[in-house]
Amino acid sequence: MAIEPAVKEVPGTHAFPVDIADEPRLHATLDRITDTLGPPELVVHNAVAATFGNFMEVEPAVLEQNLRTNAMSLLHLARKTAPAMIEAGRGTILVTGNTSSWRGKAHYAAFAPTKAAQRILAESIARELGPKGIHVAYLVIDAVIDLAWTRAMHPDKPDHFFIQPDDIAEEAWHVAHQPRGSWSFNVEVRPFAEYW
Amino acid sequence: MAIEPAVKEVPGTHAFPVDIADEPRLHATLDRITDTLGPPELVVHNAVAATFGNFMEVEPAVLEQNLRTNAMSLLHLARKTAPAMIEAGRGTILVTGNTSSWRGKAHYAAFAPTKAAQRILAESIARELGPKGIHVAYLVIDAVIDLAWTRAMHPDKPDHFFIQPDDIAEEAWHVAHQPRGSWSFNVEVRPFAEYW
Amino acid sequence: MAIEPAVKEVPGTHAFPVDIADEPRLHATLDRITDTLGPPELVVHNAVAATFGNFMEVEPAVLEQNLRTNAMSLLHLARKTAPAMIEAGRGTILVTGNTSSWRGKAHYAAFAPTKAAQRILAESIARELGPKGIHVAYLVIDAVIDLAWTRAMHPDKPDHFFIQPDDIAEEAWHVAHQPRGSWSFNVEVRPFAEYW
Amino acid sequence: MAIEPAVKEVPGTHAFPVDIADEPRLHATLDRITDTLGPPELVVHNAVAATFGNFMEVEPAVLEQNLRTNAMSLLHLARKTAPAMIEAGRGTILVTGNTSSWRGKAHYAAFAPTKAAQRILAESIARELGPKGIHVAYLVIDAVIDLAWTRAMHPDKPDHFFIQPDDIAEEAWHVAHQPRGSWSFNVEVRPFAEYW
Repeated sequence: MAIEPAVKEVPGTHAFPVDIADEPRLHATLDRITDTLGPPELVVHNAVAATFGNFMEVEPAVLEQNLRTNAMSLLHLARKTAPAMIEAGRGTILVTGNTSSWRGKAHYAAFAPTKAAQRILAESIARELGPKGIHVAYLVIDAVIDLAWTRAMHPDKPDHFFIQPDDIAEEAWHVAHQPRGSWSFNVEVRPFAEYW
Repeated sequence: MAIEPAVKEVPGTHAFPVDIADEPRLHATLDRITDTLGPPELVVHNAVAATFGNFMEVEPAVLEQNLRTNAMSLLHLARKTAPAMIEAGRGTILVTGNTSSWRGKAHYAAFAPTKAAQRILAESIARELGPKGIHVAYLVIDAVIDLAWTRAMHPDKPDHFFIQPDDIAEEAWHVAHQPRGSWSFNVEVRPFAEYW
Repeated sequence: MAIEPAVKEVPGTHAFPVDIADEPRLHATLDRITDTLGPPELVVHNAVAATFGNFMEVEPAVLEQNLRTNAMSLLHLARKTAPAMIEAGRGTILVTGNTSSWRGKAHYAAFAPTKAAQRILAESIARELGPKGIHVAYLVIDAVIDLAWTRAMHPDKPDHFFIQPDDIAEEAWHVAHQPRGSWSFNVEVRPFAEYW
Repeated sequence: MAIEPAVKEVPGTHAFPVDIADEPRLHATLDRITDTLGPPELVVHNAVAATFGNFMEVEPAVLEQNLRTNAMSLLHLARKTAPAMIEAGRGTILVTGNTSSWRGKAHYAAFAPTKAAQRILAESIARELGPKGIHVAYLVIDAVIDLAWTRAMHPDKPDHFFIQPDDIAEEAWHVAHQPRGSWSFNVEVRPFAEYW
């Protein structure tokens, strides 16, 4: 599991792998996290299930499953972690997305609707939690992330075609540390040469 | 069932009541419609399940159910009816929505994400079917529709606060009859005095 | 002047040619129109000055001139014609635009800002005049219009690449005749095979 | 002039006051800045001329003047400062705006169109300069800035109603220092309790 090497690299981190589309296990895992580390101050919803194809090519069950992973899980996560944040009067929920959350291209029939649902749900949560001192933001990553498998998919692309995970993390860190007098909800990052 | 008086009023119409969130019954009903009347040239996706409350107040199961009624059913409907339209090289799929499909207010946590998913799915289908001669449009109704139960909910509002079902139907008729050289996807209607 | 053949074709029409960027002449012409035909019930702002090139290629004076033709003239037109409409409690102002009114591509530096200004000005006017019974709408034409000179520019394109002026007129007619209980502000039309 | 106390407060800064709507003086001032300090690596377009009232209340000359201050000046500034940045292969142009750049409310007839024009011009410049290594971003400040005169206008508002100039500066600093592999164009900040 990809998360395990990461845990080894970063001292003091813990991994709690779980399929976030599996509601009972997600709840159990969140309980375990809280029991181990205390209630989270910062939650990042970075899970994504992506399937490509037009509306005739993808099975409805696939869209349903992607909705569960990409949108429903955000609701479970927020409902589970927000109460402690509300009590503390502070906390952050970051949600990652991409341009599919804004538009439905033909071959994204089973993906774009799930990211749009996730973004609008995040917006609704942001408006509820903002006045309670909790920051919710939606970070659109408008590029292909530089990973072993994306490099393999795009062997001819130059380095600067890809966005670096470290740079995304840097932006997420920034948003998570904005003072409460100056919060962003919609955040976007793309490499300098990206066509948009 | 509200649809039955309507059928009595309009000669030559047929009603096939079904819960569109119930996939097997939706499929069976669509088969029955096609058997009785032939493949549809025009499909209107006007179903809506609305539940209001912020993300802590509404149960996740409610969001999931609303996603099924408002978004998943559009995919089922389109997959079932588009093939005959593609073969004919013509046809229309109209989808109705509201401003929740564009933004997530705090108390629309279980509704706005479903309409955003529906709108973006319709957009994806529109881009796939347009070049095949099939018109898909998304009609935002930015007002309270004039019905017995909405009047009861807003007893103090003047007549012009409400949008008339006949006027919505008129707009839908217009969109359904646009020539293929000049189609709208995003369509919106609101009363003259509506605040927006 | 292209408008003169049109006048000959359509019985009972009058042409009052004027450079709408020339404020004093625009005012004088509008006075002449009102003297001849009475106060207008329907105004269509269809003027456009388009210059292409990135921000280094186009002279600032060109952007300024395009702002005058595309945006300032709408303000003059609306200020001059709205008072009689307000008094009558009815009237329509239609404004035509294109996708540049929504986004700034690199080579549209002297054009897109002018259409964005025009669209947002129309929106501001719509919100002011709507409750007074006057309908303002913005019609985005997302295609190349079929004209002698556009055909010459795109000699290899099939017929269906172009949008027909008659179809645009048909849509404008529809919008101008929407009942006041059901008005559109943002309207868009594109041919079925247009990429968007 | 408000800028002068600021210069006294921050050691090593220089003030070059100029009316940016006055093209010849703007050019002369930019020349003087370059002569004194060398070509700028970072340009912030923070000028704003705001006049409120609906389209009947504000004189067209006011809209024209606001277009000059808010939009035309950005074009002058970018044309004057971008060439040295292009040669260096790096540089940043930050433009500040507000929600009027996205929508036209009735009482913003002479303001919203100017900010929309500015935003779309910035977008066009961003798309041209991005691939050349120059970062252009548009920072929407969705709040009333905490200043002596805004406090006087809103005497009953709590402290947290206002956004702090230091917080805006912090966000601008962040955007100006994003690595070129991860740039934002649209940036927004608002206080935690702001209604949006």
